[in-house]
Amino acid sequence: MTEPTISIDRMLSGVEALGRIGADPRGGLSRLGLSPQEQVAHEWFKQEASRLGARLRSDAAGNLFARIDGERPDLPPLMTGSHLDTVPNGGKYDGAAGVVIALEVARALTESGQTLRHPLELVVFRAEEPSPFGMSTFGSRALAGRLRPEELDALDARGKTVREALRSVGGDPDRIGEARMKAGDAAAYLEVHNEQGPHLERAGLPIAVVTEIAGIKRARWRVLGEPNHSGTTAMADRRDALIGAAEIALAVERLAKAYDGAVGTVGVLEVHPNAANIVPGAVDLCWEIRSCAPADLTALERQLDEAARAIVARRGLRLEESTRSNSQTAGADAAVLAALRAACDAAGVEALELRSMAGHDASHMAAFTKIGMLFLRSTGAKSHVPEEHSPPESLAAAASVMLDAVLRLDRDLE
Amino acid sequence: MTEPTISIDRMLSGVEALGRIGADPRGGLSRLGLSPQEQVAHEWFKQEASRLGARLRSDAAGNLFARIDGERPDLPPLMTGSHLDTVPNGGKYDGAAGVVIALEVARALTESGQTLRHPLELVVFRAEEPSPFGMSTFGSRALAGRLRPEELDALDARGKTVREALRSVGGDPDRIGEARMKAGDAAAYLEVHNEQGPHLERAGLPIAVVTEIAGIKRARWRVLGEPNHSGTTAMADRRDALIGAAEIALAVERLAKAYDGAVGTVGVLEVHPNAANIVPGAVDLCWEIRSCAPADLTALERQLDEAARAIVARRGLRLEESTRSNSQTAGADAAVLAALRAACDAAGVEALELRSMAGHDASHMAAFTKIGMLFLRSTGAKSHVPEEHSPPESLAAAASVMLDAVLRLDRDLE
Repeated sequence: MTEPTISIDRMLSGVEALGRIGADPRGGLSRLGLSPQEQVAHEWFKQEASRLGARLRSDAAGNLFARIDGERPDLPPLMTGSHLDTVPNGGKYDGAAGVVIALEVARALTESGQTLRHPLELVVFRAEEPSPFGMSTFGSRALAGRLRPEELDALDARGKTVREALRSVGGDPDRIGEARMKAGDAAAYLEVHNEQGPHLERAGLPIAVVTEIAGIKRARWRVLGEPNHSGTTAMADRRDALIGAAEIALAVERLAKAYDGAVGTVGVLEVHPNAANIVPGAVDLCWEIRSCAPADLTALERQLDEAARAIVARRGLRLEESTRSNSQTAGADAAVLAALRAACDAAGVEALELRSMAGHDASHMAAFTKIGMLFLRSTGAKSHVPEEHSPPESLAAAASVMLDAVLRLDRDLE
Repeated sequence: MTEPTISIDRMLSGVEALGRIGADPRGGLSRLGLSPQEQVAHEWFKQEASRLGARLRSDAAGNLFARIDGERPDLPPLMTGSHLDTVPNGGKYDGAAGVVIALEVARALTESGQTLRHPLELVVFRAEEPSPFGMSTFGSRALAGRLRPEELDALDARGKTVREALRSVGGDPDRIGEARMKAGDAAAYLEVHNEQGPHLERAGLPIAVVTEIAGIKRARWRVLGEPNHSGTTAMADRRDALIGAAEIALAVERLAKAYDGAVGTVGVLEVHPNAANIVPGAVDLCWEIRSCAPADLTALERQLDEAARAIVARRGLRLEESTRSNSQTAGADAAVLAALRAACDAAGVEALELRSMAGHDASHMAAFTKIGMLFLRSTGAKSHVPEEHSPPESLAAAASVMLDAVLRLDRDLE
């Protein structure tokens, strides 16, 4: 038995190998959730994990698990991983870096001959990014029991259902309930992910310990007015859906700004009929609000609903809601946080402490186990673009800290 | 020689005959400007005008003229007409009613054996409505010398140019300058058009005398910000193009409301990339403002430009302008107004006096001749829809008043 050692080169060649799967002629990687390209990346993972002697298993939701037995078969596994799907024209690091680091931690342990008390289970979550079916964190929500049955019938632009797509990657929509995990099924879950923000670069640090993951509330609304001739309809006679939607967008901004650390966005807005000489009759829009403070998020949501109701009432418009989703705020577990901080100290790595404003699979794992996350520095704060990058020293620091934190948690947790 | 008499039945059968040309399976009529369907309607007009012994002529812009000689070949023609193109899925009355009434006035005069001093020239303008090439009042602007040369190179969605489309309906883009008319080329121009608004129905009257036609200023802008992750980009770090565009839309409304009788609209707005979790990086929008008061329109345009500059500066955005068009305010000529009012009195027709907030071919005819217009009542104020309708009594009143006004102007004008 030797001291387990992290190899930067091995991790970089993993990132590069995955960076050739799903290469898009328009640039970057397009390994969309539930696509054949994502499945090729899963196959790559199976090959790598098999070499470590891990036992492979897929669940009904298409999540992939690789287990290395520990000394105590009665203990639940320590889990770590991330996802291998990308956004359209995405980069090499989002998701893939976390999987590569999880593999490297397992490799370092295996090569050193060290056996944990707990089983070590690597996990690749299915379809974390917004998929062509209009949903995200598919696999981890299945584990948390947060997938709504109707989501399986959602369609992509070609009319394919989630059910069909899931079957084609080896999942089983009819047994998806069996994928659910409950308290006690895992000892803890650790994830490394790229920051997708500017804080680490600004601070000049390689990694961050994530203290909380923001909750996200999102809805799709239709604002209904009356389409009319833009010349002959006097200002006082109009029921202009776009003007109402513009006020709603400004209300989202104004209300989000009033809560420290919250963000609010209208990212989607479509006008009907969208003609220069017709007063807009209808507008479809999506808003979302995010905060790490659950009470703030609830208050913000209520204020936004009230503001929108007041706007449409004042303007003689109507509001229809087609969907509303709610991803809860998740805090890192105290024991996991302590292990990550101690591992940073032991390795002499100065780490920032950050709240995550992006959603992650770890948010849903928090429904049934202790979670913790590390962030990698994002060069230029860029994410979801072909030039997405994290420095090798960030990967090295994260892998070393993860390895040590796993050893600490293996010792301390039951 | 007998007293010239208007026939309601003849007019209604004209409206019905035209209402079968370009019938769209999705509903209504689609006789788009510069399309083969519009040309079929022109052929119908040629047949009807030939029966009256009129001499037919088309110009390089595809406008169609039918001339009935008067006693004094040295006098310029009294002109009347409208257009035969429609919006997609439009109705039977917009444009067609004015052409049918012009034909009826000519028929009534011809049948009665009455000869005017002036030539009577019926005109069918090419492509009055917003065409697939992104422009409107094509034919009348050619007569007024207001067509910009680059407009001939505009493309439709299939990549066809205006030049090609114009050639296929018998026009000649290379000689379009020859279509231009100058002061003295016409004695006056009269047009009947459906109101496309609620005022006649509210007043319970059949027709209106139009006193002025609003000027229209229109522009297409791109608001440029920076696309970013909607979670990890703090509110203070955003350059959200949609929020800037929302403020511009509200400024259009606020400024237009400050001018009595003016209207302002953002009818087109498109968000890029239009994804729920991305702060909008760019927004394309079209605004337009209309007023019958030229000074108001100029002031409103200046204030809107200033407001938009202030908004983008405050938000760290940029503004790019791709097009700006300007249709000038046109007033009805005093002599033509007097003739129309006298004709109403003589016929015992109570007419409203209205300003037109819609643009018309008459606006451009005003560049070189005396103009006047009548409006027909629009049932339910509907226009540009399959159910567009004007009551037969409105058509009858308009035709009688037009006939009498033509006789009065023929007597009074040189």
